Amino acid sequence: MAQIYDKVALIGLGLIASSMFWAMKRAGVAGHVSGYARSQSTRDTARRIGLCDTVCDSAAEAVKDADLVVLAVPVGAMGAVAAEIGPHLKRGATVTDVGSVKRQVIEAVGPHLPEGVHFVPGHPLAGTEHSGPESGFATLFDNRWCLLVPAEGSDPEAVDRLTRYWRALGSNVDIMDADHHDLVLAVTSHAPHLIAYTMVGVADHLRRVTDSEVIKFSAAGFRDFTRIAASDPTMWRDVFLNNKDATLDILGRFTEELFVLQRAIRMGDGDMLHDYFTRTRAIRRGIIDAGQDTAAPDFGRTKVEK
Amino acid sequence: MAQIYDKVALIGLGLIASSMFWAMKRAGVAGHVSGYARSQSTRDTARRIGLCDTVCDSAAEAVKDADLVVLAVPVGAMGAVAAEIGPHLKRGATVTDVGSVKRQVIEAVGPHLPEGVHFVPGHPLAGTEHSGPESGFATLFDNRWCLLVPAEGSDPEAVDRLTRYWRALGSNVDIMDADHHDLVLAVTSHAPHLIAYTMVGVADHLRRVTDSEVIKFSAAGFRDFTRIAASDPTMWRDVFLNNKDATLDILGRFTEELFVLQRAIRMGDGDMLHDYFTRTRAIRRGIIDAGQDTAAPDFGRTKVEK
Repeated sequence: MAQIYDKVALIGLGLIASSMFWAMKRAGVAGHVSGYARSQSTRDTARRIGLCDTVCDSAAEAVKDADLVVLAVPVGAMGAVAAEIGPHLKRGATVTDVGSVKRQVIEAVGPHLPEGVHFVPGHPLAGTEHSGPESGFATLFDNRWCLLVPAEGSDPEAVDRLTRYWRALGSNVDIMDADHHDLVLAVTSHAPHLIAYTMVGVADHLRRVTDSEVIKFSAAGFRDFTRIAASDPTMWRDVFLNNKDATLDILGRFTEELFVLQRAIRMGDGDMLHDYFTRTRAIRRGIIDAGQDTAAPDFGRTKVEK
Repeated sequence: MAQIYDKVALIGLGLIASSMFWAMKRAGVAGHVSGYARSQSTRDTARRIGLCDTVCDSAAEAVKDADLVVLAVPVGAMGAVAAEIGPHLKRGATVTDVGSVKRQVIEAVGPHLPEGVHFVPGHPLAGTEHSGPESGFATLFDNRWCLLVPAEGSDPEAVDRLTRYWRALGSNVDIMDADHHDLVLAVTSHAPHLIAYTMVGVADHLRRVTDSEVIKFSAAGFRDFTRIAASDPTMWRDVFLNNKDATLDILGRFTEELFVLQRAIRMGDGDMLHDYFTRTRAIRRGIIDAGQDTAAPDFGRTKVEK
């Protein structure tokens, strides 16, 4: 595949950035990839495993002469990183990010970027429950969606180039408005994560049901929640604090709906429950048809050996 | 492996019973397996795919001379099935079930079983989001747990034989008291299922976020809920109606906990959220260590082709 950017800088070297690096190498879309992580131990690991062509000891050094700068730090750290790199950005460079929240990131990052730098916020909808520089892999973005959220008046050429870049990394790309993005993600990701964290927390608190029983007998449904609730704590703290309104809105609707179902259980309204569960089953079919999951039973989990 | 029962009768031919049949054939533990399903179309399918050595047109005929009778119908149908087969059971036979709720099943089934028949209720903690006679497979129970819930005074030989039978089908076996079972399962299975149904229902209702977006961008967390919420509606209606108290108890705790986390988001209490999410991550580790899930990212899902 043809090179799209001469130099790409990855700021933050966790799951997403490390996967981007391996996917860039697979696609051959970047001439040189520099990387920076705040922690010395992450930088050491990156050097040891060959993550990035150059690992730099400062963000300023990493972004020097870069044509594309990717902010891949927790949402709450985006503003500070932008302030740090702003003065060192090349004129004509594109800055993007991979944050799960867009409105707050735009407000935090935008003011720090100089004239002549193109800011095209983005969000690859991909991830696993693992984190850190060693968790990345080249196929993470294959057939997943990457949402780009350009501001009004963004340079169309910069948006188009970034679109081609994400497609080369394996993604489908869609363009979306920031507020709509934050609402859609509150439904498809943020509320489900908080709910999973909550259910796992409840199980943890229950002393009548010992920990070992909850773990031993988790295959009956609970373990799928624990995978979601094993996601990176810092990243998710920042997501909730920075997409507060949409998340609280969806959680409010969720609680309302839960109370309706709880009442149906209490009153013994079997028809209502059956109708409800029949409707939700159809949604699953849509996700399989859209190619966003496997129809293999149990996600096609490979057999777990003890 | 040595034969454990001369004749086994499967009453109900859904996911669990059909998996039991293929697992029995794999292990060679049953001389003859008869089966019965209420619906003519299920019986036709079973005959067509070779599910059961004999498919009978009545439950009474299926249980004739059986050494082990497995009730594999929704929890709400157990009592009626027991009433139907009671007079036809062989003296010395063992009757078990695979229901997800134990106290109510024991109360519904017990009174219909004649003297000299051993009732050893059971619950294999295994399943997928698929249902029906064609959804079964021989490895479903491998390394999963089967909980047996014998009443006080149960014949130890009957319990021991059923234990050996489930082990031959690939399961680990544990013995538990009925009420404790119903509480543990409310935590590990029933409440998580209702929560998943609720979240999928909320997404379905939201007209501001179109259906297609929810489905298209589901990979960010939501799709794991949809798998759980695609489970058999009749089975789950009956589970909730028959494990009402424990499920409502856990859901009450869940809501309480959710409100605490919602409040932390509203107040911007990042430390509280971070601590909470760090704790829940550790539980996941326990489940991997216990061999009840895979540590492969994203459950080791095979790549989904469009």
